[in-house]
Amino acid sequence: MIEEKNILNYETVDLDEQEGALVILDQTKLPGEVKILRLKEQKDIWQAIYLLQVRGAPAIGVAAAFGLYLAAKDIRADTWEEFYPSLHKAKEYLNSSRPTAVNLSWALNRMEKVAEENKEKSIPEIKELLQKEALEIKAEDVWMCRKIGEYGLRLIKDGDGILTHCNAGQLATSKYGTALAPIHLGRERGMNFKVFCDETRPLLQGIRLSSFELMADGVDTTVICDNMASQVMRNGWVDAVFVGCDRVAANGDACNKIGTSGVAILAKYYGIPFYVLGPTSTIDMSIPRGEEIVIEQRLPEEVTEMWYQQRMAPQGVKVYNPAFDVTSHELISGIVTECGIARPPFRESLREVFRKSRNGGRDGVDG
Amino acid sequence: MIEEKNILNYETVDLDEQEGALVILDQTKLPGEVKILRLKEQKDIWQAIYLLQVRGAPAIGVAAAFGLYLAAKDIRADTWEEFYPSLHKAKEYLNSSRPTAVNLSWALNRMEKVAEENKEKSIPEIKELLQKEALEIKAEDVWMCRKIGEYGLRLIKDGDGILTHCNAGQLATSKYGTALAPIHLGRERGMNFKVFCDETRPLLQGIRLSSFELMADGVDTTVICDNMASQVMRNGWVDAVFVGCDRVAANGDACNKIGTSGVAILAKYYGIPFYVLGPTSTIDMSIPRGEEIVIEQRLPEEVTEMWYQQRMAPQGVKVYNPAFDVTSHELISGIVTECGIARPPFRESLREVFRKSRNGGRDGVDG
Repeated sequence: MIEEKNILNYETVDLDEQEGALVILDQTKLPGEVKILRLKEQKDIWQAIYLLQVRGAPAIGVAAAFGLYLAAKDIRADTWEEFYPSLHKAKEYLNSSRPTAVNLSWALNRMEKVAEENKEKSIPEIKELLQKEALEIKAEDVWMCRKIGEYGLRLIKDGDGILTHCNAGQLATSKYGTALAPIHLGRERGMNFKVFCDETRPLLQGIRLSSFELMADGVDTTVICDNMASQVMRNGWVDAVFVGCDRVAANGDACNKIGTSGVAILAKYYGIPFYVLGPTSTIDMSIPRGEEIVIEQRLPEEVTEMWYQQRMAPQGVKVYNPAFDVTSHELISGIVTECGIARPPFRESLREVFRKSRNGGRDGVDG
Repeated sequence: MIEEKNILNYETVDLDEQEGALVILDQTKLPGEVKILRLKEQKDIWQAIYLLQVRGAPAIGVAAAFGLYLAAKDIRADTWEEFYPSLHKAKEYLNSSRPTAVNLSWALNRMEKVAEENKEKSIPEIKELLQKEALEIKAEDVWMCRKIGEYGLRLIKDGDGILTHCNAGQLATSKYGTALAPIHLGRERGMNFKVFCDETRPLLQGIRLSSFELMADGVDTTVICDNMASQVMRNGWVDAVFVGCDRVAANGDACNKIGTSGVAILAKYYGIPFYVLGPTSTIDMSIPRGEEIVIEQRLPEEVTEMWYQQRMAPQGVKVYNPAFDVTSHELISGIVTECGIARPPFRESLREVFRKSRNGGRDGVDG
């Protein structure tokens, strides 16, 4: 039996069935304060996703699934015709909280589909099935991250230097993470790595979250400002770059936290392999190229006012604040999923990974 | 006659002869507060340079020259033998405040040399010559920046998008700046540009200082986080990158604010010309390659504690905080000096620029 100790002493995202609450660790308070939020109202759940109190594509999916289940549970209806419009409205509402995160709509669609496929059943039965589905989405997430960790570990060796951007770790998923899954899984197996965390402006997920969870797991962790990655690579300290992804197009273009494309260009220049790690649910075969991914623009104050405490830009200055950028497939050495590693050319390899995913992914092999 | 209106309503660095004070604009307080410091004590002058209250290679040189003059003025001595050890000690002390800035030692050596060459003269005469030399260093700085602006303007056209990193503007010099000299000079001539300012972590000189002085000059200014430069370039908004330099090696490798090399790699990838702008005093022909430039490492708290107010990294995490990085000459389209534009191959073109500089630079032509 595989020991599955949780690296941190709390869950990133959980369901308290008895209390009827979505339970999350408020990530906007880290690393200074470990604060658990118990959210019962839909507007609070929406806000938690919007404000990045829960964040990371997989964790958002799990949170939204739990959120939609909680909404469904409260719907007073005796028939499908009474039940469904309220369910759909709740789904659309949650779906509007982070438009770029494909896992959000993926999880919500999956939940709605379960209800639709069982519309002949009684409402209490449908609600029970929705609960089961939400819990299954979380269990699959843990399984997927573990598989991503296993594939990722094939790409590095004990003691390697790894650079990561933003947080695609345990705090972005139910467990292990995606980009950081190989690091955490390696730790379980007695390995260690030297990890460099880009601080990741404007919201500082790298310095606040990645370094927090890595240090909690005993990893040799160094934080840098985003603009220091070039010098760290020039020093020869980086053997591989591991980043997560919010959406991958059919040609391998990867949408991820703003700054990722810059890191990829640096890695290419210095001859360092650059890997994108994420579940197949982030691959969107309906989008042919990255150019067609809509990039969320966020509030200027995230850039101009540090921690919303002290303004550091002149009043009235224009601000460009995209939440994500697109990394061209030509810069990516491999896309690591729970069903194997897709290598260039990605149109073919991603299709192959996707095929395995439809088979349930359990036969995943290195592609 | 050329009108030389000052863009800002105050001097970056000045000498108050009557009061015996170095007068600087405290740049650590910008953009929120315009605070003028009047520094009389050597330790306060040393600290102002160390803490970046005055910053930018040329401004540091001028500040140090004024500082050494003020030290000399206070030396009680009747003979050269009594005078010189105190002068030399004061010089060495000021020289220790920013080890990487070549202008610092350049200006201080120039001051000391004037004293040495006139050691037969009376001490009051030597002191007067030191004052004259310090004022001349400032006047030359204004002239040089204006020339750099003129050469730089040949590289862009009205309305172009320019990306800059850190602050190599008026606030880094006595006037006009280096990287931003073409922008300010263009404004005087009725032109305008769309300037993107990297915020420049950890000390945020781009978002605090460059955007401040550009807006004061009516420039169309947009601030971005450092990691957004790739996306801005991908959007096609950047026609040229203009950065300053702290030291240029004989082969063209340029040492500048941390993050510059990353911007250069991005510019190369996107096919955007990347220009380094600086006076010939920053060219150090005694250093063959950038690898041999010693990079100043600074305090971890600059990275981990925003504005020294709130910690955003876990306690105990390792921090890598180099103040500068080296941009390889192969990434540089041109080095713009007051004596012309050096183009690759730089070993030859920098030597040519240097030759003109020794001739006084007044015959500078586009190289």
